[in-house]
Amino acid sequence: MIVVQKYGGTSVGDVDRVKRVADRIARTRRAGNQVVVVVSAMGKTTNELIKMAEEISDDPPGRELDMLLTAGERISMAVVAMALHELGVPARSFTGSQAGIITDARHGKARIVDITPGRVKEALDDGDVVIVAGFQGVSQDTKDVTTLGRGGSDTTAVALAAALDADVCEIYTDVDGVFTADPRIVPDARKLDRVSFEEMLELAAQGAKVLQVRSVEFGRNYGVEIHVRSSFSYSQGTWVGPEEKKMEDAIISGVAHDTSEAKLTLKGVPDKPGVAARVFTALAEANVNIDMIVQNVSAEGVTDISFTLPRGETKHADEVLSTLSDEIGATGVDIDDSIAKVSLVGAGMKTHPGIAARMFAALSDAGVNIEMISTSTIRISVVVDGDDVETAVRAIHDAFDLSDGMVGKEQGA
Amino acid sequence: MIVVQKYGGTSVGDVDRVKRVADRIARTRRAGNQVVVVVSAMGKTTNELIKMAEEISDDPPGRELDMLLTAGERISMAVVAMALHELGVPARSFTGSQAGIITDARHGKARIVDITPGRVKEALDDGDVVIVAGFQGVSQDTKDVTTLGRGGSDTTAVALAAALDADVCEIYTDVDGVFTADPRIVPDARKLDRVSFEEMLELAAQGAKVLQVRSVEFGRNYGVEIHVRSSFSYSQGTWVGPEEKKMEDAIISGVAHDTSEAKLTLKGVPDKPGVAARVFTALAEANVNIDMIVQNVSAEGVTDISFTLPRGETKHADEVLSTLSDEIGATGVDIDDSIAKVSLVGAGMKTHPGIAARMFAALSDAGVNIEMISTSTIRISVVVDGDDVETAVRAIHDAFDLSDGMVGKEQGA
Repeated sequence: MIVVQKYGGTSVGDVDRVKRVADRIARTRRAGNQVVVVVSAMGKTTNELIKMAEEISDDPPGRELDMLLTAGERISMAVVAMALHELGVPARSFTGSQAGIITDARHGKARIVDITPGRVKEALDDGDVVIVAGFQGVSQDTKDVTTLGRGGSDTTAVALAAALDADVCEIYTDVDGVFTADPRIVPDARKLDRVSFEEMLELAAQGAKVLQVRSVEFGRNYGVEIHVRSSFSYSQGTWVGPEEKKMEDAIISGVAHDTSEAKLTLKGVPDKPGVAARVFTALAEANVNIDMIVQNVSAEGVTDISFTLPRGETKHADEVLSTLSDEIGATGVDIDDSIAKVSLVGAGMKTHPGIAARMFAALSDAGVNIEMISTSTIRISVVVDGDDVETAVRAIHDAFDLSDGMVGKEQGA
Repeated sequence: MIVVQKYGGTSVGDVDRVKRVADRIARTRRAGNQVVVVVSAMGKTTNELIKMAEEISDDPPGRELDMLLTAGERISMAVVAMALHELGVPARSFTGSQAGIITDARHGKARIVDITPGRVKEALDDGDVVIVAGFQGVSQDTKDVTTLGRGGSDTTAVALAAALDADVCEIYTDVDGVFTADPRIVPDARKLDRVSFEEMLELAAQGAKVLQVRSVEFGRNYGVEIHVRSSFSYSQGTWVGPEEKKMEDAIISGVAHDTSEAKLTLKGVPDKPGVAARVFTALAEANVNIDMIVQNVSAEGVTDISFTLPRGETKHADEVLSTLSDEIGATGVDIDDSIAKVSLVGAGMKTHPGIAARMFAALSDAGVNIEMISTSTIRISVVVDGDDVETAVRAIHDAFDLSDGMVGKEQGA
């Protein structure tokens, strides 16, 4: 078997943890597998490097920031390789560039455009364990070092697994897998044994931090089986893969929440064709990332347009809209910094009516007011007051009996 | 002009120093020069990385150790480039590999075999300042990252200056230049305005730490003018270049000392042809680095052979010799860990007789016993007791009137 394993910064946080990770890799190798390991930077290294850059410049050039940050994985991959040698397991480390991770030139958020893993394959054929620096690549045009953005190591791992036609891509983290809700909010949240790519995409996009969205997209596009599991135990985690027939029984996978967004409302907008287009074109041109959009029913020829966006982009969006507001004859902009988004995700939703009604009733019973609603075929998201987020997550989790020991009942329903 | 500047770890030791270095680079650029900057790792970074490697393995593989250590220069080159951008000076950083520093594959002590600075030249032509990671390259055969060994950044700088046909290679350090003796031992030691490559080679090889021996060899072989100067002032330092006619007047350049060696003596060696060859062949095969060798006059058909070597290799050499001692009929091995080597260097020595006699008399007057002597055409070295090193350096420095203000007299003599 070809096994790709990815270890995050916490898993390689210090020398002792590096040794423990090496031990796990050595076992996988000795079991007869060919092993490729993708590592993140140790512990808080990346944050420390960013802090140093900020002390030097408010706006460091992306090329140089990428050069700086990639030093982090360089350190962790070398020490993991050393720890393996110490265990008698030959290992060779490769930078993203050496491993053939070819990207575009968008520094800080580069996208993988190709993988040419010739050196990785050679080393595997020699019997070596291969350690690859996560989160980084080399740009096709400029030959400069690039980074894939935060969480990019997941993407490196899944993309390499696809390129090598690996049997499994194991993502090691500090939790046991994907849960029906954040266990810090819902203590009896249940670990999922298996979720589909589509569900995982929705969960990740709606705030579940266990896997990076782009890595799941890669997995889905290339059919890579992903196993999310804990680096602190040997128990099975959560498998992420193609949707299976028997999955239809499980209506709901879980509840995700996201407290990183804000809500902007453009008020008193004349209800005419083309107005919404002008608003969102202006925001797109200003590189504002819009998430949910809701337009209220028109009353007396005017309406309100609300949308959510990353909180860090609020000021910028406000500037764009304040200028536009006069031009289109709107009456002003409202900002709400204290919101939370709570989402219910489940592939079975497609064939089971009444899920939304049950979710809204649960929120109402818990005294939580719904400010916005948006849905996909396998997801229902609501925006609520930020202070209500834990109440909302628990209420929904309870309403669908997602806790341990109650699943059988629900699935049989 | 094309100017190559090299800044050591102390010069870029923290964010404030990085900004100061950037300011100096910016001035050089704004004066109309094309500037290439070679940087070492910040402050104690390299030592910290080595410490981490040692915590993981007693004998880390060279390839991985090089991968680890090169993270240090990667960090410093990126932050120096950022600091330049902040001053409005466009700058681009390159790893050793990107800058075309091609080496052999001897990890930890690789030798530069070629320089292909295409990307460096392109960036210079674009008007950018180029920042290059010192101390590192990429191996010709394996394409693996290599390091040149401690002090390798000096070599990177001089080699790049040669490849770019630069007008000067400025080596920035924390002292004002090359001195007639270590100012910590001889407070009135004088800064030299100019020394020849040959003298600098002898001074560096005999313990002067201001320049790395291999960088001076590169300078001599390719005729690169080297300017050793302080990163904390704008005053002129010491120029290292080809010997000049007028240099003949200066008999003596300076006194160097080295306390890092030990002395081994193989006693009661039969005075027969081929014995010395057997001894030093055995040591060479065991990779022991021999420095000075002295064989005493034979008495009653037996002799003693003494030599100096790096103190860290004493144990290894002792093992080799103890085995050999019986085979060749010697009586045993003596180890002296407390020695110092003191050397007098000067190009004028070649044409001025009596220098050795004057040096030995000075030592005798100061009560310092000479244990070994070795000479080259422009150097006289003696081994003395380790406790006598400061007395010896001062006595010789005084005897040749090397201090500030006394030079004119000496040179006129």
